[in-house]
Amino acid sequence: MILCDIGNTSVDWYIHGECSKQGIDEFAPSGLTEIVYYICVNAKFESTLNGLENWINISSLIEWDNYYPTMGIDRIMVCEAVRDGVIVDAGSAITVDRVHDGKFQGGFIALGVRAAQEAYARLSPALSVSFNFEVDLDKMAKNTPDAITVGFLAPLIHEIKSLGRPIYVTGGDAEVLSSFIEEAVVDRSLIFKGMQKLIEKGKVC
Amino acid sequence: MILCDIGNTSVDWYIHGECSKQGIDEFAPSGLTEIVYYICVNAKFESTLNGLENWINISSLIEWDNYYPTMGIDRIMVCEAVRDGVIVDAGSAITVDRVHDGKFQGGFIALGVRAAQEAYARLSPALSVSFNFEVDLDKMAKNTPDAITVGFLAPLIHEIKSLGRPIYVTGGDAEVLSSFIEEAVVDRSLIFKGMQKLIEKGKVC
Repeated sequence: MILCDIGNTSVDWYIHGECSKQGIDEFAPSGLTEIVYYICVNAKFESTLNGLENWINISSLIEWDNYYPTMGIDRIMVCEAVRDGVIVDAGSAITVDRVHDGKFQGGFIALGVRAAQEAYARLSPALSVSFNFEVDLDKMAKNTPDAITVGFLAPLIHEIKSLGRPIYVTGGDAEVLSSFIEEAVVDRSLIFKGMQKLIEKGKVC
Repeated sequence: MILCDIGNTSVDWYIHGECSKQGIDEFAPSGLTEIVYYICVNAKFESTLNGLENWINISSLIEWDNYYPTMGIDRIMVCEAVRDGVIVDAGSAITVDRVHDGKFQGGFIALGVRAAQEAYARLSPALSVSFNFEVDLDKMAKNTPDAITVGFLAPLIHEIKSLGRPIYVTGGDAEVLSSFIEEAVVDRSLIFKGMQKLIEKGKVC
């Protein structure tokens, strides 16, 4: 099975069990003849992909009653992957969602690590310092790098932990975030698991 | 007593019990002959104020052993105002500090409401929506405005509430933040109370 997640800057592939990534500029969908199941948030490629018979957009398989209309397709896919738990997708934004009994219960969107750091830097040159990922989030800070790291991460991590278990963490900053969540299950291929589940469901129905 | 807090974009005054604000462009310190006790984060005015005999910079009265060298002077002043409690100064950044027995215990710096909203908007046009300040922070969200509001505010408010009481809230967004903290004591003149206390201490020593 070939799965493809087309973003705005990069494309994530799952090809017969192997995950890989490529820059959006290298993406050449017409070069493939096998069936490719895909999701796409990149408007530039929508019409091209629609015109290719072997490219199947699985967003039509989503039961939208379970979600909300403006919810990101990536976010829906990671929710589809899980039957019960909290899912943290730490990318440019950090989405946090709760699924119970296979049903989306709601969630929230925090800023991503990089977006937050850039926002601090924009506020003041004094806050244009790197996060200290070694910091103890349970201690109040007494220097600037710790104060912004604790200010961004402590509320978020404590909130995530309060939402229940298991906690699945995926996305580019999965390692950083999960280092603060002892009980976290890091799963980089959660999105593809969700896509697979959705495709299986679609075939059964 | 005249107190003055000189920021980068505006100047806050406390003149014989009355608080007022003016734009930085209208600020004309040499026009006053009375004694003015001030704090200043605006580098542009530092040398001018140093040259005026009736303008007294009270930052020299700070016992720095209690704080840390890069800590904002405004933040130190609100800490000086309180003997025991949590202090939230909701401005361009939101500083959260704990004071026990008159001694600073540490704190953290979150993004301000506006900075956060701008950072969401920068991430994606889909997230360029206004916060919904009517949202229930204890519910997981099912639409985009609620998802970003809960994502920014729920972790922060829950973290603040976990730090103890009383909770003092000051700064431009004091009303917004305190609407989510039932037990909050809103005090817009906290910074001037801190300045007054520090001046009194300085006179006694």
